[in-house]
Amino acid sequence: MSHNTFGKLLRCTTFGESHGPAIGCVVDGFPPGLEISPEEIKRELERRATGRSRHTSQRKEADDVQILSGVFEGRTTGTPIALVIENTDARSRDYANIKDSIRPGHADFTYWKKYGIRDYRGGGRSSARETTMRVAAGALARKWLQQEYAIEIQGWLAQLGPIRTDSEMDWSVIDDNVFFCPNASLVPELEAFMDQLRKSGDSVGARVNVIARNVPPGWGEPVYGKLDAELAAAMMSINAAKGVEIGAGFESVTQQGTEHRDEITAEGFQSNHAGGILGGISSGQDVVVSTAFKPTSSLRIPCRSVDTGGREVEVVTKGRHDPCVGIRATPIVEAMMALVLMDHALRHRGQIGA
Amino acid sequence: MSHNTFGKLLRCTTFGESHGPAIGCVVDGFPPGLEISPEEIKRELERRATGRSRHTSQRKEADDVQILSGVFEGRTTGTPIALVIENTDARSRDYANIKDSIRPGHADFTYWKKYGIRDYRGGGRSSARETTMRVAAGALARKWLQQEYAIEIQGWLAQLGPIRTDSEMDWSVIDDNVFFCPNASLVPELEAFMDQLRKSGDSVGARVNVIARNVPPGWGEPVYGKLDAELAAAMMSINAAKGVEIGAGFESVTQQGTEHRDEITAEGFQSNHAGGILGGISSGQDVVVSTAFKPTSSLRIPCRSVDTGGREVEVVTKGRHDPCVGIRATPIVEAMMALVLMDHALRHRGQIGA
Amino acid sequence: MSHNTFGKLLRCTTFGESHGPAIGCVVDGFPPGLEISPEEIKRELERRATGRSRHTSQRKEADDVQILSGVFEGRTTGTPIALVIENTDARSRDYANIKDSIRPGHADFTYWKKYGIRDYRGGGRSSARETTMRVAAGALARKWLQQEYAIEIQGWLAQLGPIRTDSEMDWSVIDDNVFFCPNASLVPELEAFMDQLRKSGDSVGARVNVIARNVPPGWGEPVYGKLDAELAAAMMSINAAKGVEIGAGFESVTQQGTEHRDEITAEGFQSNHAGGILGGISSGQDVVVSTAFKPTSSLRIPCRSVDTGGREVEVVTKGRHDPCVGIRATPIVEAMMALVLMDHALRHRGQIGA
Amino acid sequence: MSHNTFGKLLRCTTFGESHGPAIGCVVDGFPPGLEISPEEIKRELERRATGRSRHTSQRKEADDVQILSGVFEGRTTGTPIALVIENTDARSRDYANIKDSIRPGHADFTYWKKYGIRDYRGGGRSSARETTMRVAAGALARKWLQQEYAIEIQGWLAQLGPIRTDSEMDWSVIDDNVFFCPNASLVPELEAFMDQLRKSGDSVGARVNVIARNVPPGWGEPVYGKLDAELAAAMMSINAAKGVEIGAGFESVTQQGTEHRDEITAEGFQSNHAGGILGGISSGQDVVVSTAFKPTSSLRIPCRSVDTGGREVEVVTKGRHDPCVGIRATPIVEAMMALVLMDHALRHRGQIGA
Repeated sequence: MSHNTFGKLLRCTTFGESHGPAIGCVVDGFPPGLEISPEEIKRELERRATGRSRHTSQRKEADDVQILSGVFEGRTTGTPIALVIENTDARSRDYANIKDSIRPGHADFTYWKKYGIRDYRGGGRSSARETTMRVAAGALARKWLQQEYAIEIQGWLAQLGPIRTDSEMDWSVIDDNVFFCPNASLVPELEAFMDQLRKSGDSVGARVNVIARNVPPGWGEPVYGKLDAELAAAMMSINAAKGVEIGAGFESVTQQGTEHRDEITAEGFQSNHAGGILGGISSGQDVVVSTAFKPTSSLRIPCRSVDTGGREVEVVTKGRHDPCVGIRATPIVEAMMALVLMDHALRHRGQIGA
Repeated sequence: MSHNTFGKLLRCTTFGESHGPAIGCVVDGFPPGLEISPEEIKRELERRATGRSRHTSQRKEADDVQILSGVFEGRTTGTPIALVIENTDARSRDYANIKDSIRPGHADFTYWKKYGIRDYRGGGRSSARETTMRVAAGALARKWLQQEYAIEIQGWLAQLGPIRTDSEMDWSVIDDNVFFCPNASLVPELEAFMDQLRKSGDSVGARVNVIARNVPPGWGEPVYGKLDAELAAAMMSINAAKGVEIGAGFESVTQQGTEHRDEITAEGFQSNHAGGILGGISSGQDVVVSTAFKPTSSLRIPCRSVDTGGREVEVVTKGRHDPCVGIRATPIVEAMMALVLMDHALRHRGQIGA
Repeated sequence: MSHNTFGKLLRCTTFGESHGPAIGCVVDGFPPGLEISPEEIKRELERRATGRSRHTSQRKEADDVQILSGVFEGRTTGTPIALVIENTDARSRDYANIKDSIRPGHADFTYWKKYGIRDYRGGGRSSARETTMRVAAGALARKWLQQEYAIEIQGWLAQLGPIRTDSEMDWSVIDDNVFFCPNASLVPELEAFMDQLRKSGDSVGARVNVIARNVPPGWGEPVYGKLDAELAAAMMSINAAKGVEIGAGFESVTQQGTEHRDEITAEGFQSNHAGGILGGISSGQDVVVSTAFKPTSSLRIPCRSVDTGGREVEVVTKGRHDPCVGIRATPIVEAMMALVLMDHALRHRGQIGA
Repeated sequence: MSHNTFGKLLRCTTFGESHGPAIGCVVDGFPPGLEISPEEIKRELERRATGRSRHTSQRKEADDVQILSGVFEGRTTGTPIALVIENTDARSRDYANIKDSIRPGHADFTYWKKYGIRDYRGGGRSSARETTMRVAAGALARKWLQQEYAIEIQGWLAQLGPIRTDSEMDWSVIDDNVFFCPNASLVPELEAFMDQLRKSGDSVGARVNVIARNVPPGWGEPVYGKLDAELAAAMMSINAAKGVEIGAGFESVTQQGTEHRDEITAEGFQSNHAGGILGGISSGQDVVVSTAFKPTSSLRIPCRSVDTGGREVEVVTKGRHDPCVGIRATPIVEAMMALVLMDHALRHRGQIGA
């Protein structure tokens, strides 16, 4: 994993800026023979899309994905799969006024310091638009995992600001609301919270969880390619992520060993504080990951900052933004889970041959 | 990062089992010209060592490190630096009784499922003994960062079970107590808690924090080699780690954007919720990471489990174990911070040339 | 280097099939600030293009390259540079008759055995069309090396079948003839040879040499990232390559040490049998590489083979082919030289900081 | 492949200098379950050892290999296998007189220019002593390939200076003479040639060939991880290598397509100009590689050179050297063939699952 490529045997390279002509990815090392169509990929993209409700950014991208290579007569061939999506609703003029300003909480300052040059339109490469291609690549990985191992991956919004949503869970409703909330009765509360937030001009953080069921025991490469270590990197590489937990996560701090250790009987594990991973290797239990997303810093509420000349300025971000970036993060964490798992599936059978 | 090698340009490969003849590492890509001696490395190792107090494992390893290559007339030469430490106090007989048992909460089950074979003595490769070599390699990285960039890295025990230790901090006392506690007045409380815990036969989790000061802005490689993503992987790859936070971490979930975004004035950043990283690149602020460690599962309190034949057994772990593995984790998170930062220093100047 | 990505710090990932919708590449890790235009890239592509004379394939591709990302206001930004070229003159119908046949000397057999599926149209991924993107990526590397280090890279056709062309060399004429022949007086002989060959329906091999001038001493990473080792891999990865030499190459076999070793005086090296590389590291002398290309196997002269069912068939390749693939190889070996050198430039300054 | 690590899924990291305390390697990613003993490794090492005859260097190393990790109860466990060999016959005093001199044809100049510091004793890291560990690691790979796929690897000295040795071949005699000559009747001629050469104080080059039988079709990763590209890098990374050929190699230059292309009938391929690789993927035919080794530059015949201060000096190399380094190269090219093939075996089954 480095720069713009993710994974070892299954390698996903993404490219593209928010307001450039197109974004895309190259998925290399994908096994041959999987049936795949642009429509299947698009279905996943629509779950992540902006403009689905008033609670997310109003940018409306068609997200029509073109498969440029690696698929022949509807099946993957084992050669690199290139996917490209044109940017059609990029309103770069929104950003002219921030050309020389540093937006606090964004990557403006650090890209400028690192590269000495930056594409300021919509955050350029640092925009969450990049995650579109993670979801596209993840759609391939997800289908393969499902077909080869019956692995099911499901994410959900576990907390939005102060509102915890998953004390009671109904898997079937998650995809029926724009929040990916697993408790339908809480949706009105979420909507009211978001309406109020939008009105105030502020933003809020969120926690998004994801589990993978039916992961076979044995995946993961100790000690520096541990499954949990690479899941942590994968989730932390998503825009706005600030924390990652596996299983009991930070609750482990106050747990005692007799509580945390998952006892085993002939029927199997009696609990899952480990989150399905022991010593960096999957145990066969559900793999459980939780990710914290910060509130977006793009607000119409003014903020103190400086420009590239070091002069103090007041920054107001107009553009079209998500008041809670976590709302649309569910398909992204699912995609990263799928990509990490599939990479480990290939790596495992490389060394072990199973 | 994969299998047993960590890093891209600065690559650390570790090897060795808890009860094998030796453990070691090869540090490749290290720049030439740094003065280094075995004694300097040993000083770091002693901070991590077992047997320093009654609160940690009683295994007593000399940890005399031999430099087998890469150093000539006291200076690094640019060629791979091999470090080896003999295992001298491995009491393998302690483990004969668990040869066929699966210790819950350990990697026994998953190594056995993955490899079909396992070195059961003291956890073999999955033992925390491996982290000795991280500290050894980290000693080199730390010295280099200090000399080249005046970077200072300091970790501390932020929480031990229910006891939060860093509401008031005194940097100068951290290394004066075996807990790496930054508040000297809390040490008696920690000792009493640990004495009680040890008496009970149980164990407890901990939170360990680390900061790096004077990191220049611009380090980190978007989007899949982000500095925070690689720090997350680095920390999560440590034995018993279950969660990682950057800056505000999970507190970001309930924060609003106006609170979280770090405003900037001509004097610089006005807060550091970001933890020194924006868009995966260092901002010049302190880099701040927090890691959760679970309670060890090696207890003398019996536990239900199975053996490799699937029969139910009762497991009691004798051996010599840490009732709180987090206590000795401080030098390890410091080492991982140093290794990640130095790798990024080299990668940054590779692409940018600065 | 692996699968479809080449390089370590400068990484070029190519994708696309001969008769798919497009071919492309993603160049990652490229330093920011280089001015680059599609026209500059196209100029390099035209040197490699088919259809420039009757001596190469008559396929006529516009090779209009689109820059999809990584360039902003005419300069590279440090983010991944995606280049895409549409396939406009793919006549897939030429290949319908060989859908089930194995063309000897091609990758048909091995792709089919490996993947169980193959895009048979024009060789699919194994087509030399892929090398277009090497030249495109190489154009960027070449310009950067020229600007940063005044490095000049020049290739030439050293031998075409039995005709050795470089016993006398005139650098200025190489680009003036379609053969990249460094001796203008031999061009009529080459033309006559090729006309006769084309008439016969047969093909022939070639040797292509390349040198790089002004490479600073110190580039190359012993012992498995040696400059010569990576140049060998780079050249051998080109379609139809069967041999690679550095400096004296196979002539070293019969040389004695007193002849081969390049003596040094205060004026510098007195000869260059080493080809500019000692111990895998550049010495400051010209880096000299020679590559052997086999004759293409696509002939209209019938050939015995089998089909995918194992039945014996007679294969006649119609399509549009180069009777000597080596003729167009000169810009490709130059591109690979540029990509390897630039990757090593970045790797060197990563570790050494110069 | 980079710096001191070779391979992708099977990764061999070597370390150590010629006159340091020890040399060693870490073999990571090796599958569990293979029986292996130090004695088996030593048997391979003895084939490469110096001091076996008057025709090679008189340095006498015991080459007792210690297995420090990764093997438990005689079997590999899937964890990293560390091998270490002490340097026992390093006579560093031989090198005191060349401390400041640049030996032409050696890596002295380039290491000094790159690193600004060098271990001058016996070439330090650039010494052929490093290849000992390639042979040690190769012994593991070779045994695994033999057990899993019945792959047989055999190298031989194909040419020593002007003497071509393999126009007639008898496989059974190769290991019976110190030259690895496949024609017993030529051994006296080789001995006479070498005796004369040694008397003259000069050295000579050699060509070493290697084949692998029973390699299944399908191994190799297009387009930048081609089997032939990685074999080329592997061979070129060996000390003194100057050229690599696959199959017909440079003879392809003068061949016509009708001659080179290997026709196929129901009985299989009718020739093997391809050297067992098509499109970078193994075809199931013998994989055939030829490598050119230059004459060593360490001669007692004086040579013009400079010292590190730029002053002209006369260099005479005393030490103990091979007048033909190619003589001992046969076990090394076999080892590199084994390591490349095994890495590709694992990579292939990673992506394809077979």
